[in-house]
Amino acid sequence: MQQLESSLEQRMPPLTKSAVLVIGGAEDKVHGREILYTFFERAGGRDANIAIIPCASREPSIISERYRRIFDEMGAKAIEVMDIRDRQQGEDPVWEKHLENCTGVFMTGGDQVRLCGLLADTPVIEHIRRKVQIGEMTLAGTSAGAAVMGRHMIAGGGSGESPNRSLVDMATGLAILPSIVVDQHFHNRNRMARLVSAIAMQPDQIGLGIDEDTCALFEGDSVFGVIGKGTVTVVDPTEVTYTNEPDIDATEPLSLHNLRVHVLTHGDRYDLQHHHIVSH
Amino acid sequence: MQQLESSLEQRMPPLTKSAVLVIGGAEDKVHGREILYTFFERAGGRDANIAIIPCASREPSIISERYRRIFDEMGAKAIEVMDIRDRQQGEDPVWEKHLENCTGVFMTGGDQVRLCGLLADTPVIEHIRRKVQIGEMTLAGTSAGAAVMGRHMIAGGGSGESPNRSLVDMATGLAILPSIVVDQHFHNRNRMARLVSAIAMQPDQIGLGIDEDTCALFEGDSVFGVIGKGTVTVVDPTEVTYTNEPDIDATEPLSLHNLRVHVLTHGDRYDLQHHHIVSH
Repeated sequence: MQQLESSLEQRMPPLTKSAVLVIGGAEDKVHGREILYTFFERAGGRDANIAIIPCASREPSIISERYRRIFDEMGAKAIEVMDIRDRQQGEDPVWEKHLENCTGVFMTGGDQVRLCGLLADTPVIEHIRRKVQIGEMTLAGTSAGAAVMGRHMIAGGGSGESPNRSLVDMATGLAILPSIVVDQHFHNRNRMARLVSAIAMQPDQIGLGIDEDTCALFEGDSVFGVIGKGTVTVVDPTEVTYTNEPDIDATEPLSLHNLRVHVLTHGDRYDLQHHHIVSH
Repeated sequence: MQQLESSLEQRMPPLTKSAVLVIGGAEDKVHGREILYTFFERAGGRDANIAIIPCASREPSIISERYRRIFDEMGAKAIEVMDIRDRQQGEDPVWEKHLENCTGVFMTGGDQVRLCGLLADTPVIEHIRRKVQIGEMTLAGTSAGAAVMGRHMIAGGGSGESPNRSLVDMATGLAILPSIVVDQHFHNRNRMARLVSAIAMQPDQIGLGIDEDTCALFEGDSVFGVIGKGTVTVVDPTEVTYTNEPDIDATEPLSLHNLRVHVLTHGDRYDLQHHHIVSH
């Protein structure tokens, strides 16, 4: 493990700043742990003061324990679990105190609607957003924890249909990265049609479809790099010339002309603001 | 039925020439029959002399009978079934004679590998190709009958994975429309990742993902129109700036930068040669 982590350390970009990690779910927790190790390093490594937020999960104790053990094995200095189970509890000043010294927050999987219901517009999430914005905290979210990153969030949906509005349920996310709509377990659960449907409804956003054990790593500006075993699919509607979206019923098929799509793999980097690949 | 078909007749483009219909499978055979009726009309309507090719199917008699009844109800002048069960049988001059007067050929669903195995490089398919090219015959293929239209054919594949070469089995098609790679039952069976994988391997082709009860109607030039209930997805790699395809193992995820994707619905038209939507 120690040896593997040393070799990973050499592959990582320089640790110049904090980061936001948007993880497609099912990240490796046993072998290389590449994504989790990147989070740990970006949070400060052996100086990391990590908070685990298990609020998306209905089994917050079990899931927290699993991540606590992993970050403990990696050598984090301190690990807190913010097991907030109702909004009132979320206003307890004890959490603010935890967050003051915290260098890394990890949001687990579960149900993104539950996570937003507990955290949206609370002092906790405002504190996190502020520290992330000024580069004093690394934030990671996996699966449901990734889904909440945008202002517009995919709350649920289906597959096996032509793109249409009823294929996707939209809700309001935590707006950590306001210009993106995230879909996770992306190719693993065949979610292209639902992400395309979401983007037809939010054509001022960029869709990011993130596969399992794969991560979009944002480093404080609008550029993200891809880490992991699968792909990050960018669905960019900036150049769209026509859609029937305003004119049809919710179950009718959506047209979208001139989408730009990028399928990115480990090591690729993309500039969200300027809508292009950072040269290979 | 008669009334519905009259109303469809008014919606159809003018019947100036023969056509090739690439149908995504599961076309309506009971109610409006819009796609099958379009084939019937393009084949000559009440003057149509139709041949049904059920070779993709392992139940050629049953499937032929179903289509025979439909075209008979519509009023076709003559209907032949070309129930060819081995390649030797395919060389019988009787088929050539059938095709001489034939104005429309319909290839049913089943297994595209079986269909190509029976017809590739036979006098039958050469005769059909020639008559289609000079605009003397309308050709339709649904499901497996659609899959064979390109020079490069998707023979099979999977879903639920990041795009990768092992997700799709490629074979040689009948090359009626040589520049396209067709995938059928497209969104219904979540085939975006396999079509993207196919196009990464054949970047000089254009991918067409055709949903069920949906048709790409080619009218003798490189422009096709969309008919039906779902979408036709164009995956155009012309502007691709980078792919890792040559450098990776078959199961590693594929990257593709700068794909152009169009999701088209009923009434949309696309120019394959010039790579753009025909203005809406």
